[in-house]
Amino acid sequence: MNETYEKLKDRLARVRDLEFAAALVSWDEEVMMPEGGAQGRADQSATLGSLAHHFFVDEEVGALLEELAPYEKFQPYDSDEASIIRVTRREYEKEVRVPTSLVEEIEHAKSVAHHAWVKARKEDNFALFEPHLAKNVDLQRRWAACFGDSGNPYDRLLDRYEPGISYDEIARVFSGLKPRLVALVEKIVANADRVDDSMLRFPVSEDVQQAFSEEVTAKLGYDYNRGRLDVSAHPFTTHFWRGDVRITTRYMPDNFASALMSSVHEAGHGMYEQNTSESLYRTGLDDGTSMSVHESQSRYYENVLGRSRSFWRYYYPRLQEIASPHLNQVDLETFYRGLNRSQPSLIRVEADEVTYGLHIMLRFELENELINGKVQVSDLPREWNDRMEAYLGVRPPNDALGVMQDIHWSAGLFGYFPDYLLGSIFAVQLWNQLQKDIPDVEEQIERGEFAPILEWQRTHIHQYGSKLTFPELAERITGGPLQWEPYMDYLETKYSEIYGL
Amino acid sequence: MNETYEKLKDRLARVRDLEFAAALVSWDEEVMMPEGGAQGRADQSATLGSLAHHFFVDEEVGALLEELAPYEKFQPYDSDEASIIRVTRREYEKEVRVPTSLVEEIEHAKSVAHHAWVKARKEDNFALFEPHLAKNVDLQRRWAACFGDSGNPYDRLLDRYEPGISYDEIARVFSGLKPRLVALVEKIVANADRVDDSMLRFPVSEDVQQAFSEEVTAKLGYDYNRGRLDVSAHPFTTHFWRGDVRITTRYMPDNFASALMSSVHEAGHGMYEQNTSESLYRTGLDDGTSMSVHESQSRYYENVLGRSRSFWRYYYPRLQEIASPHLNQVDLETFYRGLNRSQPSLIRVEADEVTYGLHIMLRFELENELINGKVQVSDLPREWNDRMEAYLGVRPPNDALGVMQDIHWSAGLFGYFPDYLLGSIFAVQLWNQLQKDIPDVEEQIERGEFAPILEWQRTHIHQYGSKLTFPELAERITGGPLQWEPYMDYLETKYSEIYGL
Repeated sequence: MNETYEKLKDRLARVRDLEFAAALVSWDEEVMMPEGGAQGRADQSATLGSLAHHFFVDEEVGALLEELAPYEKFQPYDSDEASIIRVTRREYEKEVRVPTSLVEEIEHAKSVAHHAWVKARKEDNFALFEPHLAKNVDLQRRWAACFGDSGNPYDRLLDRYEPGISYDEIARVFSGLKPRLVALVEKIVANADRVDDSMLRFPVSEDVQQAFSEEVTAKLGYDYNRGRLDVSAHPFTTHFWRGDVRITTRYMPDNFASALMSSVHEAGHGMYEQNTSESLYRTGLDDGTSMSVHESQSRYYENVLGRSRSFWRYYYPRLQEIASPHLNQVDLETFYRGLNRSQPSLIRVEADEVTYGLHIMLRFELENELINGKVQVSDLPREWNDRMEAYLGVRPPNDALGVMQDIHWSAGLFGYFPDYLLGSIFAVQLWNQLQKDIPDVEEQIERGEFAPILEWQRTHIHQYGSKLTFPELAERITGGPLQWEPYMDYLETKYSEIYGL
Repeated sequence: MNETYEKLKDRLARVRDLEFAAALVSWDEEVMMPEGGAQGRADQSATLGSLAHHFFVDEEVGALLEELAPYEKFQPYDSDEASIIRVTRREYEKEVRVPTSLVEEIEHAKSVAHHAWVKARKEDNFALFEPHLAKNVDLQRRWAACFGDSGNPYDRLLDRYEPGISYDEIARVFSGLKPRLVALVEKIVANADRVDDSMLRFPVSEDVQQAFSEEVTAKLGYDYNRGRLDVSAHPFTTHFWRGDVRITTRYMPDNFASALMSSVHEAGHGMYEQNTSESLYRTGLDDGTSMSVHESQSRYYENVLGRSRSFWRYYYPRLQEIASPHLNQVDLETFYRGLNRSQPSLIRVEADEVTYGLHIMLRFELENELINGKVQVSDLPREWNDRMEAYLGVRPPNDALGVMQDIHWSAGLFGYFPDYLLGSIFAVQLWNQLQKDIPDVEEQIERGEFAPILEWQRTHIHQYGSKLTFPELAERITGGPLQWEPYMDYLETKYSEIYGL
């Protein structure tokens, strides 16, 4: 054993324990905490976060990494040793570049901007939010400038959530996709009356919804001995190591599909975290590698599998039983089409599989233009509404339903949005590969056999944790970079059939 | 503002955030964590605990305390400033005396001994536990020896949980109490057939038990906006500041009184924590002052109030309504006597109000003799059984129901047991004072008016957090030290009446 390497691992283990504790403190805040706990919780989160950061950016970590460079060279690229040193160095170099004073200024501005956003959205008054958003944009620019390169500063923000992917690469994918996606949406709108989903609206008690969500997610492979499903205002997944990975959902009394599909989505994230290699525990690589790859797993389960005909061939009889008598007279085909109904709408988080991508493209374009000074914050409402009309054919009646709908910009999250769509695109590319590797996978799904899918994901993706980047995974699994064409083909085939286009 | 004092408070705030995070991590482990989370949780707890300790025993804390000595002198004794410096110094001096290597050895031995105890108890094989218990006793002796004084080493262990109380003082109280308590138990046993509690056994659903427990504890003053009631294997109270104080209970399907009285007990602890002064937040004094004073609050609510005739004059009609038809034919007097039935039994945690004290005295005597080498670990089973027979008239048929019943010694907790009984005794002393201060308090209770009781406790006890010690509180509130006579009078009066002695 290399002693320096063990020293590095000890350091990382302490940082990770603090991060996991912070994650639990935050889970509890969303799921369990009584109202009165807020002030104490904020202090505890801040202390855990700042200590984790403090121990990670410590000069000694830098010295250990330097000392380990020769050792790293003689380890195989995929080995725990080389990967831990490589990925830790990448993250360390990002974090030490930014002065603590700027980090604190960003944290403070975020907190102020978030409160302003809540109020501005509630009162539908963009002017209240505007100066805070401008401040956040400016701080993001200053953050990006810490890295001192001459390229697009937006690349630096993107790299935070998706290491190794640049604006140009995303733009290549999105600009290929956009015209065909807009055309598909137009065709669906022209044939909107061909699909009805009113039969999905009937009362289901929370207990029954919870039990069915648990039944389905457990069957897919989410392990409840190492997880739990709770209720929170916004569904999310979190983990405190692979043995304790928790998901949440929220129940609507007359729309069982909402909680079910969101549970399946979160279970996709959860299975990723439950299946990272045990040997990566407490290294910081014991995490899904990036936002996009994470979304490729959750959106695969939610949309590609969870809204497929094969899946419901297996599950529909069981759903009919649970929902009886509401679906007794509804055949599988009608149900399947209802579940996949597509319609342009104003709100991203409620968008369907087809229109979702256009919500993302709009945000990606605006973020790039904001960071590069090509769009001013004061012009955002108009820019937003114009593009909504151009891409989706709907125009927000106010800014609360428009530019102020998402929490991200108020929270300083710039460069995060595109990963949702990159994940959807990658999900299909992976699915095509999986079908090549397991030719009878559709038949397995129809028989309710999901284990081979999870095993394939575990082998090709999950086990690596953060060892490999998104581009590396794409290359290794599919033999090439991210491709948008399979995704578009998938959408066109599926929706042409559903809408008879 | 004194800058040095502010520096000290900053240090303490960080320690406290880590301690609160550790408390949450531990609450979650007992209440929420899926089975698979154990390993990660152990690591997170260890890191948070060791960091909190590390930051607390830092030399700079010692230097700040020294520098603050002159400042302290000019602050009133009860002021936040003087109290924080005084109490922090007391705890700091305890913690820095013990070498880290010994702390680690104790932690390790505890963990090994605990596993051995679980197995030994399950298999009723004391020999499996004996060497580990001997090791724990030895380590406790070494721990006590770090303080280098010539007195009874058991005093050092007692002082950990109850600062300012010695073996001699406790022995004075217990030895006064014992003969009269043994005599009372004998009389009750001779008249056992006069009280029946079989009418308390009927099925009640968990939901109904939970709702009634919440209703009663809320009425007593436990604030659910700053708390919650959950289920755990062993009931406990924890807090992460006064705005988030949580209690737990466990439900028995045919014994509603068990969960109800344990909820009321924990709510007593909870109200203490909810009512410490806000200005003590994040100082380490934002905690009930000690084990005994804490128990004086919980046992007041559970026994003195919660098993009193006045209390049930108010609540019995409501209980009859909820339990209907099971208690429809049972009058208040019969119910009251059933709820207070007393009978010698083998297990401490199931003991009633009268016999409980003898379980504690036995442990207190044995601990003192173990630590002073007057009883050997190998003799414990016999010593235990002989004393059970002498004090309570029952002899354990095996060691699982005898010397191995409690978790404490396996977990390195020596000197902790007597505080349970000291709390019961103090509860009565406080209750007598409260009756002097609020002469019509019994009538208030019969009308369901509990706010004046909590207000009295808040004013005299809760608000101080850990500012004042148990002896200081006793002196200030009741004008003298802890007295066992009022407690014994209370028990004799109450039980003579119930059993017609």
